[in-house]
Amino acid sequence: MIGESIEPMGCCVTEGVLSQQLRENGAVFAPKFDGSGLITAVVVDAASGAVLVVAYMNAEALAATLAIGKVHFWSRSRERLWMKGETSGHILQVEEVRVDCDQDALLIRAVPAGPTCHTGAESCFYRQVVVRDGEAVLTGTQT
Amino acid sequence: MIGESIEPMGCCVTEGVLSQQLRENGAVFAPKFDGSGLITAVVVDAASGAVLVVAYMNAEALAATLAIGKVHFWSRSRERLWMKGETSGHILQVEEVRVDCDQDALLIRAVPAGPTCHTGAESCFYRQVVVRDGEAVLTGTQT
Repeated sequence: MIGESIEPMGCCVTEGVLSQQLRENGAVFAPKFDGSGLITAVVVDAASGAVLVVAYMNAEALAATLAIGKVHFWSRSRERLWMKGETSGHILQVEEVRVDCDQDALLIRAVPAGPTCHTGAESCFYRQVVVRDGEAVLTGTQT
Repeated sequence: MIGESIEPMGCCVTEGVLSQQLRENGAVFAPKFDGSGLITAVVVDAASGAVLVVAYMNAEALAATLAIGKVHFWSRSRERLWMKGETSGHILQVEEVRVDCDQDALLIRAVPAGPTCHTGAESCFYRQVVVRDGEAVLTGTQT
């Protein structure tokens, strides 16, 4: 588990300095933030593997997540750093952080302290898309 | 399983017509595409639940995914519709499509026909981010 006592740090090298080979195979963590300074983060339940939430981190949220061991996001609507669970208490305790081949997405295994979705559902993905009579509609309810 | 014989369709209503209540609890599929016309899609292995890849769909890729039952993305680098596996043969056969609370991310359970990552790894998330001496570095190799 990533500890809580680690001081915040500069988390990564500047984008663009790595060759594709080093980016995909090397040990250098060089997260590729998009034009808005964000990277996609997928959080899964460390025990069940279920996908809980997809949200976005800026460099500050990523550094805080790694340093403190609790998932932080950048809230696009509120335009501020946001520790998941800061209001509800339903924090996400980090067990593992992974990065994909081209380093533009993060996968976080975490232990949820309660339902992850603000609706009260365990996961934000509580509805299924189904095709009926050629039309895509949603089924399922919050669980 | 979503069938292969369904004709392409208009997949969804126009963004912005739903109240938050209907968006989060209703049966209307109203995917929220970003300013570039894209929505984040997370694909997990239907058998193991492992996260395989995170990529992006535009409305056309989403409609093709639902209609044909094979995962399609929008390639941001090549700027074109792209059926995953069209070159490698490692397609992703759709078992289930889910959407999150505010309908700005998709979760797809799929059966992979081979390694999903272009590097040959089963999953694009083959490396772990670890903190050593206050520095975030990567460990792990492609499997």
